[in-house]
Amino acid sequence: MQRNILGTRIPAGMHDFLPAELGILEKLEGKLLDRLRRWGYQKVLTPALEYAACVQPELDKDDELYKFFDRQGHILALRPEFTTPIARMVGARLRTLSLPLRFCYAGDVYRSSSAQYREFRQVGVELIGSGSALADAEVIALAAEGMRELGVADCQLNLGHMGIFMGLMSELGVPSEVQGALEEKLARKDLVGIESLVRQSDLSDQAKEILLKLPYLHGGEEILDELVRFSKQAEIREAVNGLREVYGYLKDFGVQDMVALDLGILRGFSYYTGVIFEGYVPGVGFPVVEGGRYDALYGDFGFPQPATGFAIHLGSLLGLFPHDGLEPAGVLVYGADRSEVIRRAQALRSEGKRVEMAFEVVSPEVEERWVEEKNISRVEKV
Amino acid sequence: MQRNILGTRIPAGMHDFLPAELGILEKLEGKLLDRLRRWGYQKVLTPALEYAACVQPELDKDDELYKFFDRQGHILALRPEFTTPIARMVGARLRTLSLPLRFCYAGDVYRSSSAQYREFRQVGVELIGSGSALADAEVIALAAEGMRELGVADCQLNLGHMGIFMGLMSELGVPSEVQGALEEKLARKDLVGIESLVRQSDLSDQAKEILLKLPYLHGGEEILDELVRFSKQAEIREAVNGLREVYGYLKDFGVQDMVALDLGILRGFSYYTGVIFEGYVPGVGFPVVEGGRYDALYGDFGFPQPATGFAIHLGSLLGLFPHDGLEPAGVLVYGADRSEVIRRAQALRSEGKRVEMAFEVVSPEVEERWVEEKNISRVEKV
Repeated sequence: MQRNILGTRIPAGMHDFLPAELGILEKLEGKLLDRLRRWGYQKVLTPALEYAACVQPELDKDDELYKFFDRQGHILALRPEFTTPIARMVGARLRTLSLPLRFCYAGDVYRSSSAQYREFRQVGVELIGSGSALADAEVIALAAEGMRELGVADCQLNLGHMGIFMGLMSELGVPSEVQGALEEKLARKDLVGIESLVRQSDLSDQAKEILLKLPYLHGGEEILDELVRFSKQAEIREAVNGLREVYGYLKDFGVQDMVALDLGILRGFSYYTGVIFEGYVPGVGFPVVEGGRYDALYGDFGFPQPATGFAIHLGSLLGLFPHDGLEPAGVLVYGADRSEVIRRAQALRSEGKRVEMAFEVVSPEVEERWVEEKNISRVEKV
Repeated sequence: MQRNILGTRIPAGMHDFLPAELGILEKLEGKLLDRLRRWGYQKVLTPALEYAACVQPELDKDDELYKFFDRQGHILALRPEFTTPIARMVGARLRTLSLPLRFCYAGDVYRSSSAQYREFRQVGVELIGSGSALADAEVIALAAEGMRELGVADCQLNLGHMGIFMGLMSELGVPSEVQGALEEKLARKDLVGIESLVRQSDLSDQAKEILLKLPYLHGGEEILDELVRFSKQAEIREAVNGLREVYGYLKDFGVQDMVALDLGILRGFSYYTGVIFEGYVPGVGFPVVEGGRYDALYGDFGFPQPATGFAIHLGSLLGLFPHDGLEPAGVLVYGADRSEVIRRAQALRSEGKRVEMAFEVVSPEVEERWVEEKNISRVEKV
């Protein structure tokens, strides 16, 4: 049946991958997964469809999920990330295994709010069952090595801690409406917005000074010393000590040169509880790595366990690479005797060659065009 | 936030893949794709979400699509198969390439009606731009070789032709309501239903005899002779000659032993127009290979081209294989000096070894359990 205009189009935010581009995506994904496996992470896969009650339990929240009703009237959603579905899976089926568990994944996630890409490939890990700073360091170091493996060694990982913002909010007595607005602006790194929000607030001058400084606390261990001068609050102390320990291990892992401390970072997903990090690469205007500790999520699935992990947005890195992921050069076989063409093609294939068969005798002009378009290195006329 | 009962469950028809099962799925997929590439098929990928107007233009049809509205009020659907999305992609972006085009794909498709699996992995090919019987033979032979490559050499491919059923219907003057009911019963191979439907119809005795015999016309070329004795109708003649030619080429391809002619098969998707085939394996109660010629679909996207292809339902073959797709055995490293543990783990990884790091000193009992559960072949205490 003839399609109307809509039926010939691709929905907004969706993308077709032609061979050269898909080839590079899969090459990068394969490299990254090999590295994750070498660190003991085993690959799992959850379905594209989940109950919204799993991936977004706060029903009245205006979110970026693709949602719809199933035939029973339950709300289904396309997975917006893998961390929560994997927590569901582990909570339901894998409670008796020895901890820690190390899982990795690669697959597409779906978010309806993004302008350009609403389906994008993520590769990531979850490390479940350890609250150790060494576990935090392992996933950060693995993210750094993963980016190196991809050939994106100029990736900059920024390391922060949820406890710093939370501790400051309670210490400075910031009202919850200001806190919410500040959180949102920090997550978006809206420095102008933060400045105007803080200046217009009823906070003390000292509180204002600290909050205005927060987004600029970026660098080595010296910024932790600076923070400790501001505040002796227990939650902040604990966060600072945690960051120091993790940062030290990163030196042992050989990745400290890719990591900076950044006390102003705040991750968008609400499940993070401890050390958090995000990775940037030149030429991509949003974090291509997102990760951190989320010690409360497994409890929400009845299996309280500390956990940490990260996701790399592989799709957003594609623009950094030439799209040359084509198949190896092949052989073109044609001729007047079709049975002979088939037998010759089969013989070459059994030698491991890539063979395209022409169904007719082709002209020299067609042959020349095919050699170029189809990456043919040899032509056999039988 | 604590999940309610629904939030801890997986939606009906969805499936989590743990490492051993996912390993075998990916091993099979990789083998199959290698084979498809060796025949000149290049991998493409279309998005999970399409406009329903693309994948199902007949809006009032009660179908098995997962459908929902986007924010503009258009109906989106999860792809139920790849053939139509690839036609959309080729029609929109690849009209100027030399024909024929050979594309392959691997990905999940979604159908809400299936009881057990509503998300399942398909691997398949599309051969676009040739109406030659040799093109039909190529895709059938490739499906047969693909099944052999998977180690399912006892796969039986049944070969039919849409023109036979259509020709008989018009020759015998079967009323459209009987035709519709018969089509549906033939597709489901409901032999009892066919018998009762035909016997109760107003058709001539000769027509009844032919229709009752149709589902049993299964075997070698002799059944084509039998059909020609029934009917001299042009559409049927053409179908028979087409099947003879294709069947002959399958001998040259070396796969004729896996293929039988079956004049009673009728494919469920409405786009098929010529030679059609389906593959069965012992122990799976539905076709695991579905394919055939669909010469009208590209015209629906404004780029009229003959085309043929197949899909293999990889997910439904998983039960035939032991779930042993685990990672290679690894090394467990632990000790009291964490920096030393990190350095040793990193050194082993740089030699290409798979290494799990323990975050604490582990007891002999824990060590023993880990060796078994985590597939560890060596333990290093540093």
